[in-house]
Amino acid sequence: MATEHHDPRDLARTVLRRQSIELPSWAFGNSGTRFKVFGQPGVPRDPWEKIADAAEVHRHTGAAPTVALHIPWDRVDDYAALADHARDLGVRIGTINANVFQDDDYKLGSVANPDPAVRRKALDHLHACVDVMDATGSRDLKLWFADGTNYPGQDDLRTRQDRLSEALHSVYDRLGTNQRLQLEYKLFEPAFYSTDVPDWGTAYAHCLELGERAVVCVDTGHHAPHTNIEFIVAFLLRSGKLGSFDFNSRFYADDDLMVGAADPFQLFRIMHEVVRGGALDEDSEVAFMLDQCHNIEPKIAGQIRSVMNVQEATAKALLIDTAELAAAQQEGDVLGANAVLMDAFNTDVRPLLAELREEQGLDPDPMAAHRRSGYTERAAAERKGGTQAGWGA
Amino acid sequence: MATEHHDPRDLARTVLRRQSIELPSWAFGNSGTRFKVFGQPGVPRDPWEKIADAAEVHRHTGAAPTVALHIPWDRVDDYAALADHARDLGVRIGTINANVFQDDDYKLGSVANPDPAVRRKALDHLHACVDVMDATGSRDLKLWFADGTNYPGQDDLRTRQDRLSEALHSVYDRLGTNQRLQLEYKLFEPAFYSTDVPDWGTAYAHCLELGERAVVCVDTGHHAPHTNIEFIVAFLLRSGKLGSFDFNSRFYADDDLMVGAADPFQLFRIMHEVVRGGALDEDSEVAFMLDQCHNIEPKIAGQIRSVMNVQEATAKALLIDTAELAAAQQEGDVLGANAVLMDAFNTDVRPLLAELREEQGLDPDPMAAHRRSGYTERAAAERKGGTQAGWGA
Amino acid sequence: MATEHHDPRDLARTVLRRQSIELPSWAFGNSGTRFKVFGQPGVPRDPWEKIADAAEVHRHTGAAPTVALHIPWDRVDDYAALADHARDLGVRIGTINANVFQDDDYKLGSVANPDPAVRRKALDHLHACVDVMDATGSRDLKLWFADGTNYPGQDDLRTRQDRLSEALHSVYDRLGTNQRLQLEYKLFEPAFYSTDVPDWGTAYAHCLELGERAVVCVDTGHHAPHTNIEFIVAFLLRSGKLGSFDFNSRFYADDDLMVGAADPFQLFRIMHEVVRGGALDEDSEVAFMLDQCHNIEPKIAGQIRSVMNVQEATAKALLIDTAELAAAQQEGDVLGANAVLMDAFNTDVRPLLAELREEQGLDPDPMAAHRRSGYTERAAAERKGGTQAGWGA
Amino acid sequence: MATEHHDPRDLARTVLRRQSIELPSWAFGNSGTRFKVFGQPGVPRDPWEKIADAAEVHRHTGAAPTVALHIPWDRVDDYAALADHARDLGVRIGTINANVFQDDDYKLGSVANPDPAVRRKALDHLHACVDVMDATGSRDLKLWFADGTNYPGQDDLRTRQDRLSEALHSVYDRLGTNQRLQLEYKLFEPAFYSTDVPDWGTAYAHCLELGERAVVCVDTGHHAPHTNIEFIVAFLLRSGKLGSFDFNSRFYADDDLMVGAADPFQLFRIMHEVVRGGALDEDSEVAFMLDQCHNIEPKIAGQIRSVMNVQEATAKALLIDTAELAAAQQEGDVLGANAVLMDAFNTDVRPLLAELREEQGLDPDPMAAHRRSGYTERAAAERKGGTQAGWGA
Repeated sequence: MATEHHDPRDLARTVLRRQSIELPSWAFGNSGTRFKVFGQPGVPRDPWEKIADAAEVHRHTGAAPTVALHIPWDRVDDYAALADHARDLGVRIGTINANVFQDDDYKLGSVANPDPAVRRKALDHLHACVDVMDATGSRDLKLWFADGTNYPGQDDLRTRQDRLSEALHSVYDRLGTNQRLQLEYKLFEPAFYSTDVPDWGTAYAHCLELGERAVVCVDTGHHAPHTNIEFIVAFLLRSGKLGSFDFNSRFYADDDLMVGAADPFQLFRIMHEVVRGGALDEDSEVAFMLDQCHNIEPKIAGQIRSVMNVQEATAKALLIDTAELAAAQQEGDVLGANAVLMDAFNTDVRPLLAELREEQGLDPDPMAAHRRSGYTERAAAERKGGTQAGWGA
Repeated sequence: MATEHHDPRDLARTVLRRQSIELPSWAFGNSGTRFKVFGQPGVPRDPWEKIADAAEVHRHTGAAPTVALHIPWDRVDDYAALADHARDLGVRIGTINANVFQDDDYKLGSVANPDPAVRRKALDHLHACVDVMDATGSRDLKLWFADGTNYPGQDDLRTRQDRLSEALHSVYDRLGTNQRLQLEYKLFEPAFYSTDVPDWGTAYAHCLELGERAVVCVDTGHHAPHTNIEFIVAFLLRSGKLGSFDFNSRFYADDDLMVGAADPFQLFRIMHEVVRGGALDEDSEVAFMLDQCHNIEPKIAGQIRSVMNVQEATAKALLIDTAELAAAQQEGDVLGANAVLMDAFNTDVRPLLAELREEQGLDPDPMAAHRRSGYTERAAAERKGGTQAGWGA
Repeated sequence: MATEHHDPRDLARTVLRRQSIELPSWAFGNSGTRFKVFGQPGVPRDPWEKIADAAEVHRHTGAAPTVALHIPWDRVDDYAALADHARDLGVRIGTINANVFQDDDYKLGSVANPDPAVRRKALDHLHACVDVMDATGSRDLKLWFADGTNYPGQDDLRTRQDRLSEALHSVYDRLGTNQRLQLEYKLFEPAFYSTDVPDWGTAYAHCLELGERAVVCVDTGHHAPHTNIEFIVAFLLRSGKLGSFDFNSRFYADDDLMVGAADPFQLFRIMHEVVRGGALDEDSEVAFMLDQCHNIEPKIAGQIRSVMNVQEATAKALLIDTAELAAAQQEGDVLGANAVLMDAFNTDVRPLLAELREEQGLDPDPMAAHRRSGYTERAAAERKGGTQAGWGA
Repeated sequence: MATEHHDPRDLARTVLRRQSIELPSWAFGNSGTRFKVFGQPGVPRDPWEKIADAAEVHRHTGAAPTVALHIPWDRVDDYAALADHARDLGVRIGTINANVFQDDDYKLGSVANPDPAVRRKALDHLHACVDVMDATGSRDLKLWFADGTNYPGQDDLRTRQDRLSEALHSVYDRLGTNQRLQLEYKLFEPAFYSTDVPDWGTAYAHCLELGERAVVCVDTGHHAPHTNIEFIVAFLLRSGKLGSFDFNSRFYADDDLMVGAADPFQLFRIMHEVVRGGALDEDSEVAFMLDQCHNIEPKIAGQIRSVMNVQEATAKALLIDTAELAAAQQEGDVLGANAVLMDAFNTDVRPLLAELREEQGLDPDPMAAHRRSGYTERAAAERKGGTQAGWGA
């Protein structure tokens, strides 16, 4: 039985109007697998062009006002100028992602490397990333480490934790009072036997030790098979340690496909816990980002579609009749409670979102609007010469 | 290069002489799958006979001096008499395992059930288990909860954590100063959508909140596919939160096969972290238990073989040349470090263990000694009438 | 762009009107895990009552006109009388499922057992099942074998294939010309190391050898993690070897949850291949069955919901604009082709199905109609005494 | 009870003396993950140098007399000259691996691409590979296709099978009477939603249709989690369709680690089925190859270690007391049969292999001999300038 007081659609509208999803600058560059990186016409050649592409996504969705940077991929001389450039295009610079895995020195790891000189170098880079944050006004430093080992015995698992902990403390101490450390975990790849932050438990334990400005980043593609991700989300929100999401989807490993493409029902369940845990409340500090690789599909369109997928899952989660759900749960009505959830999931929310877009002066169909804009063709024509941005693996 | 000071074999001998592995009383009763429980001749009909079977395992291995009980499966009127019975047979009562999953009331969970009356009943049982501990002198209360849900929406994941936390606090407060709470996690089964303590991170977080006498129990069969269990062992030992092992092995899910039967190299890697983390040091409080189901093989022989498998993996782990290993690791010699580990794993340690058994006055071949003893035939002949013990599912 | 000639909704209506889903008699009996089987009020005590419950599902859905039997669970003296009973209630007897896993003799397998006497016994039972088919007029014999081993070395994998093949040939030769052998595969459980028909490839190879009336049964819960089930469906349909589906859903192993409950998008993709491969064409011989365990939810309602879930996934699959899809695929338009599929998936088909039900004189909401009918309360009141049906494990 | 007639060690010696393992030329080039490819000093710059490195492996192991080529990675103008070069160094050219995944045209697939022009191009390359075989005298053409899709709906799964089948027939028809087509399957990567030859069943079905010179290649890293690989080996050997192995090992996905490094017991079980199925008999045509990536460890040493790992697993498999095993299996003695297998696995076979090497005039420790040879240092000094070989992704 629904409560009389409010239509869930009203809450949905309010929340959806303010929902924002951060875009990763690297999604606009080339990416691929170890087998092949396929180029695409018009791919950006530098951070300035990546930000322009991100602005195109925001232009049509109205929901992607910030862009995350990856350092050193997005290294520039003048970060203030880059921030101005973003602002001119209607977006802002968001999270700073530190990359300590692409230098030859990092073959056996970065902050957990057995060699103290390599650890020092990696740590210096992390400190330099905080300098960038100071310049860009970023709140969040996202740390994902490729550190790990490929063979049993290769290194001492426990000692590596000591080294990792030492580096995390050093970075944490360097942060300003309004800055946060987001620690991301990942089961495997590129390391194949052990990974130094393989699961949420490890990230959580380190963050707990560091202090309240250290929080966990949940990348939806970084789990063991069969992991119940929404449980982790609920648990971290309950303990105040969920910092952010890196959204993407996967059928097998860390496939980095468009969020919602592989299992839209899972995304919906995650968003249900997000809503339930207050992470979309007005004062929430949880950050929602995409982290994807558009290996074979157009990149800007792929990002637009991904933003829309998150919006649709969010809309469905907001439409759950929470009073009816709670009542069925309390009565132990297994099928009834499940049906409340499924009713929301089975609702077609595309008209609602189209309506909200029109209300904001946007095209109700962002994909079509982007297609009509000719942006991609223009970029392909203008971006001649130079080297397309990519991971440089 | 090995250090001059000590032969790893000396350390191995010392540690192996004192190593003890706890047996689960329920391994001697019937078990099976949801498809069929196959009976076996001579299976015990009560806790007294289960303890007798456990004593037979200790008689031939000299390494299994304690027996864990499962309440209510092992409920008796006089626990002091049961403890005396054990002592008379040369063994002792160990960990108390609380079972809150076999009453009809527990269909939707025990301590996390939406119904407060069921929660109360489950909690009362947990308190009663501490009473048993007081009577038997047990140090450890092992808690595994079948709690969870089968369908998305069935219950609120976060509220269930609140209920779980409340129950854990209540039990923890009831414990005596020399008693510990061992919290066991499990990914799935019998619950299929969500489990209230699905992974080590959840168990760790609750234990941290409870206090220092709350520790994590690692059941080697309770993880998601591809989980690096030895990493968890190393991490928990580093943070002082590893309480115990439930040993068994699996090819797929929680198969509860004999430990070391599915992946002896994994068991060796786990024991390497156990040694590395001090969990076999003289003052270690980490408990090593078996938790297995001998569905189709003879139960006493299955337990003997399992104890031997743990001993062999331990012996190999103790033979690792730690100085050479550390040197190769520090130099970043990937193949060299791996080779040190593999050299130990590839060593045939059966002669060393046979020698140690003879030194203790045991038969060097416990399986053969048990076979020759005629114990099983005697039990089959004597245990006529009554109902064979089992899970009563 | 849709073709002018036909509205996909017309095709959808036609196919949905004739779609039928077979119910398993055992879904109405008690089931559970190895930890506990929870009883429910009103559970049938014999095959006659199970068929009555199945008829209740058909009464409200109009889409479940047949009931599969499991022998020996559904053994009766007079199968013709049972068939009449079914007909009186508006349903028919369908597939015969042979069960050779619950006798004590089958501890080490049935048709692949090392003991020839056990193999003979199992084979006799399979032949007896064909006798039942003759009596009930069933077309399909479904064979699932629990055969396998728990420990490496326990038996010879290859010899077991020889034994299996011999038994399959014997059964196949016994079939009438209008009867079929459906061979079902399963990765694991109850056997934990090896299973004699673990995957579709094994079932396919045996069926190919047997002849054209031997076909493969795809149980959606019987695959390794990450298996692309719709690929298997497409492949088997292409080669004319898909015989039937056992529908259910799973988050982890063979959870036997309600179909569509764990991953509705996967079910939709499967139904897309079903439509694509002609398995819903008027002359298709592919059988669609449920095979589920309602461990904690009410069983009749669980079956109704499952039938509806299959209908919804089918409706969505039928709404795919196939001309637009083919065009986008041919152009290599990755996002465009995916969008065509997602448009269908995101459509709310519940109104369409409600309309079709009303057209057939049914309540548009089968769950509500069943609830209002008072059937379950009546069954609970009337079915006093006797033993509730179950697996008898 | 062991048979009197023969010591398993005699058979082991005979088989081990003739065992040969093919090396992949690409193992000597650089490899990595999508995150980073780390270079190493002395890495070959062309096929001539790769063959020299392979010869170094054979020099110390005596068990790796052939080298597989990858076309186009190993394209040269004069294959006869390359074959002479190999012969001069004491090795021969073996299998030809066709690579149709690194051209920009192959973004949406090769032989299963929706574009007929791309399919034609891919097919032409496959035919050209048979030309290379004619020039090198190679018996086997190994086909692995990266073909697949990333998003549901992207292409039609069934039509892709038609295209694949057409290409396979064309290649098969082009083969000489002494040449074979080896079809390799892989679950995923680089395609993330569907793969056109994802499992052994698909490869088997196509090979059956092609004819007797089409056989299946089992890459040990290409399976879904929990797959029982030795079952597949046993099944394919039983049906005469096992063509070859690509050996490597993995903890998670297709990690391509050194064979035997992740699960030496699994490798032993595979080799047990290899021996059981006659694949090491004198007249066996099954090919044994390595297919690995030494991302962080030295490549030549990594190959030597891998050859030794295969030899050790083979030796253990040959030491199984088959008469005792068969007797225990026939009696249904689960623990006894398992113990026979484990006894062989637990045997330290390194002394036996050292002895055989000395008998052949080799150093008993190939790793040490290679280290002492100074080969790697020489290569690093001599191979200045040019570009190190790699995948060129």
